[in-house]
Amino acid sequence: MHTPWEHRYAQRTQRMASSAIRELLKLTEKPDIISFAGGLPAPEVFPTEAFTEACQIVLKNHGAQALQYSTTEGYLPLREQICRHTERYGIQVTPDNVLITSGSQQALDLIGKVFINPGDRILVESPTYLGALQAWNAYGAEYVSVPMDKQGMNTDFLEEALRTGPKFIYVLPNFQNPTGVTLSIERRQRLIELADHYGVPIIEDDPYGQLRYEGDHLKSVVVLDDQYRNNSTNCYHGNVIYLSTFSKILAPGLRLAWVIAPPEVVRKLVQAKQGADLHTATFNQMVAHQVSKDGFLDQHVRLIRKVYSERRNVMLAAMDRSFPPQVDWTQPQGGLFLWGTLPEHLDAAEVLTAAVARKVAFVPGAPFFPNGGGLNTMRLNFSNASPENIQEGIARLGQVLSEQISQAERLAIHP
Amino acid sequence: MHTPWEHRYAQRTQRMASSAIRELLKLTEKPDIISFAGGLPAPEVFPTEAFTEACQIVLKNHGAQALQYSTTEGYLPLREQICRHTERYGIQVTPDNVLITSGSQQALDLIGKVFINPGDRILVESPTYLGALQAWNAYGAEYVSVPMDKQGMNTDFLEEALRTGPKFIYVLPNFQNPTGVTLSIERRQRLIELADHYGVPIIEDDPYGQLRYEGDHLKSVVVLDDQYRNNSTNCYHGNVIYLSTFSKILAPGLRLAWVIAPPEVVRKLVQAKQGADLHTATFNQMVAHQVSKDGFLDQHVRLIRKVYSERRNVMLAAMDRSFPPQVDWTQPQGGLFLWGTLPEHLDAAEVLTAAVARKVAFVPGAPFFPNGGGLNTMRLNFSNASPENIQEGIARLGQVLSEQISQAERLAIHP
Repeated sequence: MHTPWEHRYAQRTQRMASSAIRELLKLTEKPDIISFAGGLPAPEVFPTEAFTEACQIVLKNHGAQALQYSTTEGYLPLREQICRHTERYGIQVTPDNVLITSGSQQALDLIGKVFINPGDRILVESPTYLGALQAWNAYGAEYVSVPMDKQGMNTDFLEEALRTGPKFIYVLPNFQNPTGVTLSIERRQRLIELADHYGVPIIEDDPYGQLRYEGDHLKSVVVLDDQYRNNSTNCYHGNVIYLSTFSKILAPGLRLAWVIAPPEVVRKLVQAKQGADLHTATFNQMVAHQVSKDGFLDQHVRLIRKVYSERRNVMLAAMDRSFPPQVDWTQPQGGLFLWGTLPEHLDAAEVLTAAVARKVAFVPGAPFFPNGGGLNTMRLNFSNASPENIQEGIARLGQVLSEQISQAERLAIHP
Repeated sequence: MHTPWEHRYAQRTQRMASSAIRELLKLTEKPDIISFAGGLPAPEVFPTEAFTEACQIVLKNHGAQALQYSTTEGYLPLREQICRHTERYGIQVTPDNVLITSGSQQALDLIGKVFINPGDRILVESPTYLGALQAWNAYGAEYVSVPMDKQGMNTDFLEEALRTGPKFIYVLPNFQNPTGVTLSIERRQRLIELADHYGVPIIEDDPYGQLRYEGDHLKSVVVLDDQYRNNSTNCYHGNVIYLSTFSKILAPGLRLAWVIAPPEVVRKLVQAKQGADLHTATFNQMVAHQVSKDGFLDQHVRLIRKVYSERRNVMLAAMDRSFPPQVDWTQPQGGLFLWGTLPEHLDAAEVLTAAVARKVAFVPGAPFFPNGGGLNTMRLNFSNASPENIQEGIARLGQVLSEQISQAERLAIHP
């Protein structure tokens, strides 16, 4: 069908093109495939009964409000609840600092809309969260990247990157998507010092911070930044915009997340959100507020930690058993993902094709690298599949990897 | 508080600046003011019981799915339901033609993202829907406008506007926001002929089409466009992108709307939506699908028509009684709004200040004009206030208008 629309796409749509990876991943959605490709929470832990009760209470007591239009900033009691939650982690803010968004993806989109001029450089980890690249590509962002290692962003390379004049720094300090690694406390400090030295602000994306399965909680970059500024009252200083979400601690199907930012930035984001979707669904905000009340959320997060921690352990143990010694992987202390590195000559996209034939799937790592590279890397999700499926899937994947590696080695000897 | 963010806003934020009108409208949100300023549905007609039941059913039978991530295109059974609904109005489409959005505001935003390059001209009615201007300003749109009269967009001026090379035409044919007027069938035909002649596609925004209180339903532009192309099978031709929403027929607090477009355009919009908010809340889509099943929506729309029709009648009758003869207004056959035109020398923003002092409010019309003008116009909403408050509010407003007009006339005589 030819329509007059097809000659009228904006230039930016060229940067939003559907990737080959995405097409490949469609194959992984078949029900008989054990998929470590997505980033889905375990549906078994969704608190459906608590939701049922909350829906009833909200509709009974505040039905007219819950189904009506509401303010762009978000439902005030929810924003207050987020302030109390945030304060426990050492960030003192008021509702003027909080914007409710339709998932963290929208927070990234609005940040792009408010801050990014075409050609602006954003300083990111390499690899980094694909959703941020997708959101910001539409605004014409370029990327200057700092390599990751098992302590997170390697701050030895940070100063050189900062000297290119990036608009802001984007960092996922806890159990990063895609690598699962955590930025060490020393590097958090170094990041803050250098960002301050060059006058470059920071966006801290923290969807998984509460899902720690071992080790001690590390202070958020936003908290450390306030302390660095000799701010003894823990008052929010505004240099760091902090993002978090209900998707991983409650349910992603609600599309609820939040931004902590200086009031002036919140006002700009609100203007952008007015044009983007007016406001986040009132009903969802009120139901999330109702569900989270009275300590339920804390109790629920403990359950999630228990379930995911077991799955991570099962996956790591299975990898120890089944993966060939040429493959290296991260040992995440929390979150949903771990990251594998194959021998340099292997292409993870080709491995995926072989893996899908054996009914197991993962995400090749290359798309997470903003400026290319990472062909031999892979992301594995451990939150969604059952422990039994994790064992079975990793066993299959181990076999595929062993075969692919031997085959590549044979080719290297007899090309 | 000074932060490094304030020097880093993108250029486009200048076009998203908060308007003086918006500040003024904040005054109208006080509870003791009778406000005709918003565009809110009547909360009394929200089907809270049906929602309560639907939430229970969805969470009981499909809880794991409802709270999980889902596809960007939207929940398939809801898209199928929309196809059936749409077919009744003469548009034959498949789910490949349907994208679920987080309210129609998001549809406008995604259309801007996919089609508008900075400096592109969009052909709009003058006045037109403010939300479209807000969405598209962020993408650097310029506007070529065609004046409205009581038959809708005046197509006598359309050809001249089309010759400026607009990217697309944006039209609200039914009970337009802000004017409440309906595009006549002859002008719909003329619009389609001229659009075809110049090869310019059309976006038809139809949030209120089902809310007609008198007269016969007029065929949608999308349907007439297909017939114009000698398409005897009523198959969707793709020249017209059609937008509608659950906000006015069910509840706006869900943020649920839909786009009908050629499959290729849907794919581009899906790519844009992936970066914007991943997908619309799964739970809301499933609940709306459950509520709308089995004829409930038709029955509910009949109730809404009855309630709004009465409020419109009460407002028109009260205006007949109370408004001075120098004021002219539209007689909408449906929708939520009517439009007043004051004597040319009066500024509706000044009238609003006087009105707010008397505890009654409306929206000055000027912001709805993309290229200036309309200082002496006003939009009145009749769906939200009770009939008693409509009578009282219009009486107060009539008095304010009479005073403002006499005062202006005295000044004209004794300047």
